[in-house]
Amino acid sequence: MTETPTLSHVDDQGQARMVDVSQKTSTARTAVAAGRVIVGAEALRLIRENEIRKGDVLTVSNVAGVLGAKQTSRLLPLCHDVNLQNVEIEFSLDDEAGAVDVRAITKTEGPTGVEMEALTAVSIAALTIYDMCKSVTKEIEITGVRLLAKTGGRSGDYRRPAGPRNN
Amino acid sequence: MTETPTLSHVDDQGQARMVDVSQKTSTARTAVAAGRVIVGAEALRLIRENEIRKGDVLTVSNVAGVLGAKQTSRLLPLCHDVNLQNVEIEFSLDDEAGAVDVRAITKTEGPTGVEMEALTAVSIAALTIYDMCKSVTKEIEITGVRLLAKTGGRSGDYRRPAGPRNN
Amino acid sequence: MTETPTLSHVDDQGQARMVDVSQKTSTARTAVAAGRVIVGAEALRLIRENEIRKGDVLTVSNVAGVLGAKQTSRLLPLCHDVNLQNVEIEFSLDDEAGAVDVRAITKTEGPTGVEMEALTAVSIAALTIYDMCKSVTKEIEITGVRLLAKTGGRSGDYRRPAGPRNN
Amino acid sequence: MTETPTLSHVDDQGQARMVDVSQKTSTARTAVAAGRVIVGAEALRLIRENEIRKGDVLTVSNVAGVLGAKQTSRLLPLCHDVNLQNVEIEFSLDDEAGAVDVRAITKTEGPTGVEMEALTAVSIAALTIYDMCKSVTKEIEITGVRLLAKTGGRSGDYRRPAGPRNN
Amino acid sequence: MTETPTLSHVDDQGQARMVDVSQKTSTARTAVAAGRVIVGAEALRLIRENEIRKGDVLTVSNVAGVLGAKQTSRLLPLCHDVNLQNVEIEFSLDDEAGAVDVRAITKTEGPTGVEMEALTAVSIAALTIYDMCKSVTKEIEITGVRLLAKTGGRSGDYRRPAGPRNN
Amino acid sequence: MTETPTLSHVDDQGQARMVDVSQKTSTARTAVAAGRVIVGAEALRLIRENEIRKGDVLTVSNVAGVLGAKQTSRLLPLCHDVNLQNVEIEFSLDDEAGAVDVRAITKTEGPTGVEMEALTAVSIAALTIYDMCKSVTKEIEITGVRLLAKTGGRSGDYRRPAGPRNN
Repeated sequence: MTETPTLSHVDDQGQARMVDVSQKTSTARTAVAAGRVIVGAEALRLIRENEIRKGDVLTVSNVAGVLGAKQTSRLLPLCHDVNLQNVEIEFSLDDEAGAVDVRAITKTEGPTGVEMEALTAVSIAALTIYDMCKSVTKEIEITGVRLLAKTGGRSGDYRRPAGPRNN
Repeated sequence: MTETPTLSHVDDQGQARMVDVSQKTSTARTAVAAGRVIVGAEALRLIRENEIRKGDVLTVSNVAGVLGAKQTSRLLPLCHDVNLQNVEIEFSLDDEAGAVDVRAITKTEGPTGVEMEALTAVSIAALTIYDMCKSVTKEIEITGVRLLAKTGGRSGDYRRPAGPRNN
Repeated sequence: MTETPTLSHVDDQGQARMVDVSQKTSTARTAVAAGRVIVGAEALRLIRENEIRKGDVLTVSNVAGVLGAKQTSRLLPLCHDVNLQNVEIEFSLDDEAGAVDVRAITKTEGPTGVEMEALTAVSIAALTIYDMCKSVTKEIEITGVRLLAKTGGRSGDYRRPAGPRNN
Repeated sequence: MTETPTLSHVDDQGQARMVDVSQKTSTARTAVAAGRVIVGAEALRLIRENEIRKGDVLTVSNVAGVLGAKQTSRLLPLCHDVNLQNVEIEFSLDDEAGAVDVRAITKTEGPTGVEMEALTAVSIAALTIYDMCKSVTKEIEITGVRLLAKTGGRSGDYRRPAGPRNN
Repeated sequence: MTETPTLSHVDDQGQARMVDVSQKTSTARTAVAAGRVIVGAEALRLIRENEIRKGDVLTVSNVAGVLGAKQTSRLLPLCHDVNLQNVEIEFSLDDEAGAVDVRAITKTEGPTGVEMEALTAVSIAALTIYDMCKSVTKEIEITGVRLLAKTGGRSGDYRRPAGPRNN
Repeated sequence: MTETPTLSHVDDQGQARMVDVSQKTSTARTAVAAGRVIVGAEALRLIRENEIRKGDVLTVSNVAGVLGAKQTSRLLPLCHDVNLQNVEIEFSLDDEAGAVDVRAITKTEGPTGVEMEALTAVSIAALTIYDMCKSVTKEIEITGVRLLAKTGGRSGDYRRPAGPRNN
């Protein structure tokens, strides 16, 4: 017989379940995530002038974020393997807040969304900024890591409502 | 010219060959694998009552098995990269045998089977159980790691014949 | 001759530099990091009652965070390989804020600190919580990822000053 | 203050705990593990005559096992990173049983044992044998994966008692 | 709205960009790469007679190259994840040059080429040869790592022009 | 009994052997490796002016090389895990040759050398340069990947003899 076997009586033993996407249709999908790294005025100036001792903070963090996005399913246990068509990371410097804003876009064609890939790209890029600036100041903080928008998939498109935290 | 280049005269030098699946058709595929971890009565009781010092054995092993399945092609040299649509791991406790039975189902749509992914999920989950119980007893043993069934692919469906070892 | 070779005239080409720790002394080191995942009241209730469909959120996130900490030097380009002696992750549920608070402690004996390992543990655990709750609500946000304290190393011990953001 | 911070009131939330080895002393450590892959008479003959289509089964499995041992702490969530001083894998062919016996020795100097590294080496080598022989027969089974002996560490040396399963 | 979001004003900050392949069509693709490891007469003789102390150089290097090809997108930051349909590595021994010639073919069906996968397979196989022979001689050198041919994709087929360096 | 177990009669089955370094003493060790990527005049100009479309070639390659060095023991089967104290990569542009010269220094304190880590850093950095320039020209070639010098270890220091290939 050819029907798919099923598991009976799981009994809540070993509680970690991927979503079975074998019945989902493949569509074009994108996700946009953002986050902020508050580094303070001094570190922000050094980043802008490319004078952080460990190197070019934004390019190194960009590389780390892109590589991190491609590791998502190895880092987050219940995420599916995805062949990303693109990972794009943008940084902007907010002088007033003494912060680097990180934004990532991910794209694929497939049965699963790429929200977690965008959020992982932002998180790993943010951690790399943290690592490269921590000899300048210890008062660093990563905030506002969140999904801004997604397209594709059965649940449809999404755009995060505007609000005090949502730029 | 556009034809695929070929390698001539391999001469038995460097003997490790993947199967070329470029001519295989993509079909829905599933695999079911099983294995047993004999831990003894005392460790089994502690697992059931969730009192193993290192934590919730079945959930931790479930996570490890799912992550392990996604690492199959990095662990087994001649396996192809596969984007799994699902990995599902089930545990059952056999008091008489003092054993945890592990069962894994894997699914994909593609030109290659997912038997080794299911077997890797079982093996890594079993090793995690071993690791988490080894402070209770050293007489642990992993047995009966085998393919129970598969569907899809040119070679057709397969179900392991019943027998003393095949539950 | 046996002296260590050096690189001359780097000329700002290829700006990414690890810190050379060959002259640093090996000491016992610890770090504590924290972060918060705002998931809202409904998801928080489901986490508490262990009714999130994907499984036991806190145990899965704990496992992901521990594994993530051990991947730090592969994720953050300029971090050194470290053999961690311990990674400990704690969760607490804040009903008023609709949030899960994550805290991680890392320990090693060596020439480099383990701040980034603690921060990576928190980030990967937080992303896993995000992933497991995102079918309940899309309005999730990771905030307050920061170092709380560290001990060991030449720069001495550090404890983050109290403040509105620093619990 | 410089004392190590501790986590209070874990409340059984997120149950996955590494053993804190920061107080353990570093000693020389070895472990020996074994396992068996039952492949049947035909596949065994092909392995012996090096005629398995995918290549030299024992050398490929040896490489996979050595690489797998070095991945142990990334595969088994609660294992510590270890710098192995040696991984040695031996195969013997048992004609009567139609089986390949796998044995692995691991060595390190450190605060943690290397039992799981030896068991992982055996398991990954066994899975590679499985993968390379599965086009010859589907009735393959991995059995008897267990620790045979260990030396070093506070709990002292161990040698598995002789018995029907323990060669 | 469902259109794909875009990033505005990148400002040359964080300069690392993958190519967005979401608009590329999926075609059959192959690549052939080559390289040479000059090891000298003595090491070449030991390789041929399979007497290098560390083992069967060509099979171990073959395995390493195949596994390396599957790691390409984790090693080269701007490469896309690819599910390879085949990786094939061939070695030939050049007595006159005291060299091992390495050649790799990679295949996939998808929107991106597999040149870098073939080149990574050659490089990792070559480094493995280097590692296994370096106790025999220190005067080893890897040369001529280059793309020989590719098929598929919008830019069409390519065959490297003949020349003194291009065998 | 506490003596280290040994493997008897390996019989040339499964030929892949790490060197057992459990009896080696730990010393300070460094290695310097070099390599060249011939990209041609046009790509070299674009690298110098930082106008390669994929981004800042030298910084991205630097990051890739540093991360690659830390992956050495996962890529080269018989290399030991090493905690590197430093990885330093330098690039210089040779207009006459139309080439980027890559040089890497690695350092550790331990029982094994870090030659392969330096060579892997050079190779992965070189492959990244290749990847980022391949849309400009297909006639790229990596040459001269070799060890220039090492210090530490029983075999003593080494400096590659000068010669036409050895800059």
